[in-house]
Amino acid sequence: MVGHAAAGPRERELASALGAIDAVAAGFEERAWARLDALTKPPRSLGRLEQIAARIAIVQRSERPVAAPSAIVLLAGDHGVVAQGVTPWPQEVTYQMVANLAGGGAAINQLAAHAGSRLVLVDIGVAADTTALGGVVQEKVRPGTRDLSVEPAMTREEAAAAVLVGFTQARALAEGGVRIIGTGEMGIGNTTPASALVAAFTGAAPSAVTGRGTGLDDGGLRHKTEVIAGALALHEPDAQDPLGTLAALGGLEIAGMAGVLLGAASTGVCCVADGFISGAAALAAVRLCPACSGYLFPSHLSAEPGHRIACEALGLEPVLDLDMRLGEGTGAALAIGIMGAACAVMSGMATFAEAGIGGPETP
Amino acid sequence: MVGHAAAGPRERELASALGAIDAVAAGFEERAWARLDALTKPPRSLGRLEQIAARIAIVQRSERPVAAPSAIVLLAGDHGVVAQGVTPWPQEVTYQMVANLAGGGAAINQLAAHAGSRLVLVDIGVAADTTALGGVVQEKVRPGTRDLSVEPAMTREEAAAAVLVGFTQARALAEGGVRIIGTGEMGIGNTTPASALVAAFTGAAPSAVTGRGTGLDDGGLRHKTEVIAGALALHEPDAQDPLGTLAALGGLEIAGMAGVLLGAASTGVCCVADGFISGAAALAAVRLCPACSGYLFPSHLSAEPGHRIACEALGLEPVLDLDMRLGEGTGAALAIGIMGAACAVMSGMATFAEAGIGGPETP
Repeated sequence: MVGHAAAGPRERELASALGAIDAVAAGFEERAWARLDALTKPPRSLGRLEQIAARIAIVQRSERPVAAPSAIVLLAGDHGVVAQGVTPWPQEVTYQMVANLAGGGAAINQLAAHAGSRLVLVDIGVAADTTALGGVVQEKVRPGTRDLSVEPAMTREEAAAAVLVGFTQARALAEGGVRIIGTGEMGIGNTTPASALVAAFTGAAPSAVTGRGTGLDDGGLRHKTEVIAGALALHEPDAQDPLGTLAALGGLEIAGMAGVLLGAASTGVCCVADGFISGAAALAAVRLCPACSGYLFPSHLSAEPGHRIACEALGLEPVLDLDMRLGEGTGAALAIGIMGAACAVMSGMATFAEAGIGGPETP
Repeated sequence: MVGHAAAGPRERELASALGAIDAVAAGFEERAWARLDALTKPPRSLGRLEQIAARIAIVQRSERPVAAPSAIVLLAGDHGVVAQGVTPWPQEVTYQMVANLAGGGAAINQLAAHAGSRLVLVDIGVAADTTALGGVVQEKVRPGTRDLSVEPAMTREEAAAAVLVGFTQARALAEGGVRIIGTGEMGIGNTTPASALVAAFTGAAPSAVTGRGTGLDDGGLRHKTEVIAGALALHEPDAQDPLGTLAALGGLEIAGMAGVLLGAASTGVCCVADGFISGAAALAAVRLCPACSGYLFPSHLSAEPGHRIACEALGLEPVLDLDMRLGEGTGAALAIGIMGAACAVMSGMATFAEAGIGGPETP
């Protein structure tokens, strides 16, 4: 549903890019498990770590998968819907946090460094000028979205352009040798578009996918749920038209994150979704191009209630469950650490034959 | 119940060592949370990561906790109860796996390296001679335990000596600057003593704490449960006498791991339990000296059914749940990675005041 006859130039460009994404080599699965089961441990005794290793091996078509170098692309954007009072935080905090990120003071700066991941900061739609901040990639599609409660957040062309920003960033990283790419975001108010998208893509009720974000009280949660329900009624999104849905209800950084996931998949690189906002982006990415799901690793189960629904719709289980709800790519950074451990096991362990160890005795 | 009048020299030495363990500085908790809540993120939005950081900060009495350098002490020992057919793996595999560990081919070698942790291999009770293997610390208390299904696995003096081996290793590491110490083990058959100890210390039924270990079928599981139930009936362990319980039902490496936890606590260092076997050791350690629980971090929830019961009795929630059941310290290594991330956040992030960011608007 991308690139139809009346599509604009960016939508056609996106359609062409998505057409080049191949599904993972599922035929490699047997070889991956043959190696894992030959390693000096009871078969499958490393549980999910082995499943993660197998998936990375399949993506990389290698029995010795690697998780380094890695990078996290953090996209920042603002949201017109904050005019509806869906968050207690003022919109200026998006800019202030981008400055904090550029200065190295945010959570993801510490966690990316701990994971050994490069952090790429992208202004895809901050409502303020970030050019004076050092180290912020300037790819602003527009200075914040429109208010999705009264009009589409973006035009189709804007949404396609935002997806292409992420796509291009991921491809450039992959071409530079990066083997795992995580997504992160900063955008005051962005649990509202994320909830709206999860509802639109999964059919879940607004009340089931709407949470307290970064600190709403009961009244605030009720109001936010009403805003989301109203937006769904206004736009009547067609889940069969993912770009139109993303344009109506999404955010620039959400579209950009979908692009990062798609761009990673297009180069055969693993991509790691962060939490709830990333989960909405992952749903959009998979609807835009189902083949990308084989490259996708959800990192952690967010404390936001809609995230479990998004993960179930994706058919993917998060690696971690630490009751986190910060965003920025913080969960992705932690998961990249676990993925590195999984690769270390699969690539570095001795086999029973190499170690000269017998197996269990047959009874 | 350690060090009573009739106690032997090692038991008296242990009692003296345990008397020097102080509880963590709970008064530091408020300061830890004051810093965490001042950092540039919605309060508590990093969930369990912040709880972990706070606990490490309390142990270290520092608002800037650190997780490096770290080490994992892997204790290897054999079990007389394998004569009862409680595992399909031959006892020789303990020695073969120690050789594999010494050669760098086991899972924990890769995971310790990935976590940046030093791995210390200790022969505390392997039934074969490991002196020809490079890099194995020789602290053999005896070459394997006796068969706990027919007699006490160890004498009280042997059990105390094994605890002291771990205690001394941990203290030496802490005195060398190590800030986090994890425990690991290798010992064919050691889910049987671990299950027996968890049943003895918690009062849980043998059937509730006995699992398939590294690969028992239904009949094997039934037999193993009967062996454990029989041992409990034979020894009638007194949970108020943790050393006697450990001696009757335990293992040399399990006693040694309890000692590692106690030794870390005695020097104000965080200690990380691994999975089920470590959980049994942690229960023994906490019964020997309740003050050590403030220093204790369970790493992951093992797939062995008794581990949840052990964690509940300890009142501590594991960091990870990855369906792992390998042992060796593999879960501890992964948790040390997460603990490092928690310390990086708490020690490296900017505060709102430092970043010049306002908080939420009051409604």
